[in-house]
Amino acid sequence: MPKTDIARRVYNHTWKLDPIVRSLLDTDFYKLLMLQMIWQLYPDVDATFSLINRTKTVRLADEIDEQELRDQLDHARGLRFTKKEMIWLAGNSFYGRTQIFSPEFLAWLARFRLPEYELSRRDGQFELTFRGRWAETTMWEIPALAIINELRSRAAMKGLGPFTLDVLYARAKAKMWSKVEQLREHPNLRISDFGTRRRHSFLWQRWCVEALKEGIGSSFTGSSNVLLAMDNDLEAVGTNAHELPMVAAALTRNDRELAAAPYKVLQDWNQLYGGNLLIVLPDAFGTAAFLRDAPDWVADWTGFRPDSAPPIEGGEKIIAWWKKMGRDPREKLLIFSDGLDVDTIIRTYCHFEGRVRMSFGWGTNLTNDFAGCAPTEINGLNPISIVCKVSEANGRPAVKLSDNPRKATGDPAEVERYLKFFGSEDFVEQSVRV
Amino acid sequence: MPKTDIARRVYNHTWKLDPIVRSLLDTDFYKLLMLQMIWQLYPDVDATFSLINRTKTVRLADEIDEQELRDQLDHARGLRFTKKEMIWLAGNSFYGRTQIFSPEFLAWLARFRLPEYELSRRDGQFELTFRGRWAETTMWEIPALAIINELRSRAAMKGLGPFTLDVLYARAKAKMWSKVEQLREHPNLRISDFGTRRRHSFLWQRWCVEALKEGIGSSFTGSSNVLLAMDNDLEAVGTNAHELPMVAAALTRNDRELAAAPYKVLQDWNQLYGGNLLIVLPDAFGTAAFLRDAPDWVADWTGFRPDSAPPIEGGEKIIAWWKKMGRDPREKLLIFSDGLDVDTIIRTYCHFEGRVRMSFGWGTNLTNDFAGCAPTEINGLNPISIVCKVSEANGRPAVKLSDNPRKATGDPAEVERYLKFFGSEDFVEQSVRV
Repeated sequence: MPKTDIARRVYNHTWKLDPIVRSLLDTDFYKLLMLQMIWQLYPDVDATFSLINRTKTVRLADEIDEQELRDQLDHARGLRFTKKEMIWLAGNSFYGRTQIFSPEFLAWLARFRLPEYELSRRDGQFELTFRGRWAETTMWEIPALAIINELRSRAAMKGLGPFTLDVLYARAKAKMWSKVEQLREHPNLRISDFGTRRRHSFLWQRWCVEALKEGIGSSFTGSSNVLLAMDNDLEAVGTNAHELPMVAAALTRNDRELAAAPYKVLQDWNQLYGGNLLIVLPDAFGTAAFLRDAPDWVADWTGFRPDSAPPIEGGEKIIAWWKKMGRDPREKLLIFSDGLDVDTIIRTYCHFEGRVRMSFGWGTNLTNDFAGCAPTEINGLNPISIVCKVSEANGRPAVKLSDNPRKATGDPAEVERYLKFFGSEDFVEQSVRV
Repeated sequence: MPKTDIARRVYNHTWKLDPIVRSLLDTDFYKLLMLQMIWQLYPDVDATFSLINRTKTVRLADEIDEQELRDQLDHARGLRFTKKEMIWLAGNSFYGRTQIFSPEFLAWLARFRLPEYELSRRDGQFELTFRGRWAETTMWEIPALAIINELRSRAAMKGLGPFTLDVLYARAKAKMWSKVEQLREHPNLRISDFGTRRRHSFLWQRWCVEALKEGIGSSFTGSSNVLLAMDNDLEAVGTNAHELPMVAAALTRNDRELAAAPYKVLQDWNQLYGGNLLIVLPDAFGTAAFLRDAPDWVADWTGFRPDSAPPIEGGEKIIAWWKKMGRDPREKLLIFSDGLDVDTIIRTYCHFEGRVRMSFGWGTNLTNDFAGCAPTEINGLNPISIVCKVSEANGRPAVKLSDNPRKATGDPAEVERYLKFFGSEDFVEQSVRV
């Protein structure tokens, strides 16, 4: 009986690379929901997505081999949705709804592939850009980030022996499980995995998701990662992202249209999805401005996802607004998802308990927390603040302000224009770690 | 390419059990050194070994299935030294000496098998006894203890799912590695593995030994486990144990012979081995009595292994004695091996640094420390104080006093007689955890 499976070993050697993204479902669920909307309402719009590394001290192009990056991106471009995946998307229910994806959309999706990319280097950073139809470029966001982040982890661990790696992962598991135990003390807490984009690696995200499933049971409400949701029979979670109001705003031709844009995309969304999917992401151009100008019907939506304000402060403002609009916050939902870890999750949960429904989208600190796990500090294992944002729509600059000036993206002159237009009321500058 | 290796899976199912002891080398090295001496000097002496569980609160016969225990003991009885093992014993050097085992002894050893056992149950405990020639029964001590301890671990983990087990071992690895990191801060510390008998399991001991080899490098001076020493090209360490003076004392016919017995075995040992193997185990009948009556040549031996006194107190007394005998302690060696963990090791090391050479034999707290690692406290994972001691020699009761009355073994009346004879000077009662 061989200790080494010769066939498997030879087979492994025939791979030209160890792929990071092995399925087009290895993305965030909101991408698919938005994709259907883009495909239906904006089929001819072009949108450019660009990689932005906000952690300037980390010189990505020095840490990651360019050819390895190209190989991984090329591999992702070779992927198609498989038959089993298409059947699952068509047959599964999402947020309690069956057939959320139309047969026409699925027929188009079956032929989908990721479009081309442009890659160059400048000042130790990669310039990675995706140009083309919005309905194609949008799908690069998550795989591009996952590839960059996992290549960086791999580079950081290149010198480690098998034993040191064993201890590294043992410690990471022990650390993760101690978080599970803290969460267990609050059985009514609701948490989901939002950690795909900045994960340490795919296999580690899978471990973390399985740990949460076994560890906190029904408190674990799902994963934003569609592949992991399918494989583990979990709910796929997530609704929409900043790119919708950003592109909608970029496409406007005058101030009146710009003011209406954030609400127009919500109306479109409502028409398409409705129900539990009515989650407002209010901070694209500042939450205060959004609430100030919001029509009454926005208060009828299920909930808000404050994504850049400090969670307690941001939550309080939305609750106050609901009250002002005559709605009962206890029937509303707040989804927190910005830079959370166990301590902020529990503190926020205890603060709002009984006053509003809550859900927590736990991201980078779930799937990429290796601090203190390596035998000696390895800087390459610390997560960085990296995003892949829409930068242009039909040739016009796209901008995000958010409630935290450090999270603003876009052409500086255009950011200035948006700031003047929407105001910067209630902006809170906070350091951005991940 | 199959994910499951069907052949291996079927093969695994053909095992009637998962053997705990798979080699006769899976024992402590001192057993082989003592065995050669017993085979040469005491070939006709009978010695009975008995299992003693000092942790009475743990009802072993309730935790461990009797049939499983019999199956494991029977499996161990089926083992022989393999050809490769015999070649290694003959060709390897131990403590700098080649051919430490005579060809005649090795020829006898090649046919060796473990003798019969007697097993019954009383009051929730196993009565496990090995009767016969000393040169056969002595070899049961380590495998019997390893089997009992690993069966107990297995029983304790029976209800755990694969995920919980993953976290359990991840935590144990993280815990073990934090000990490695503490030890690393003292590069001149010398440590060896003495953890075979009360290990959590064979595979876990192997992991710990490999961790020490990678983690503290040359500070790791070897393993008492002969199989692990061979497999990992480490020094096999250990010299002699209490059974030598215990049997020698039991065989004496009068007080003059009894008083001389502890020194007589040392002379025999010196004749057979000499050099680096001249380590005195002084506490069989109390260290104070041993030192009081010791002939001058005992002070010429390389070192002492105080095995039941508190390490700092016990070490100071031996150093004082060396000085009194006109020897320089800085040329002498103290081997500590009783209930050590990282904190006691470092404290003792710092206390004696520069005044005496030291070595630490790290046992149960190295290979069986799972405290705080299980998702909920599992009592069956806490190590117990269990020994397998010689209880009779040629039908006469064998006794051990040690420096800690709680570690005394033997017929109570006989213990009383020995106490009167040797005195109980400097005895310190300490709780015995492992």
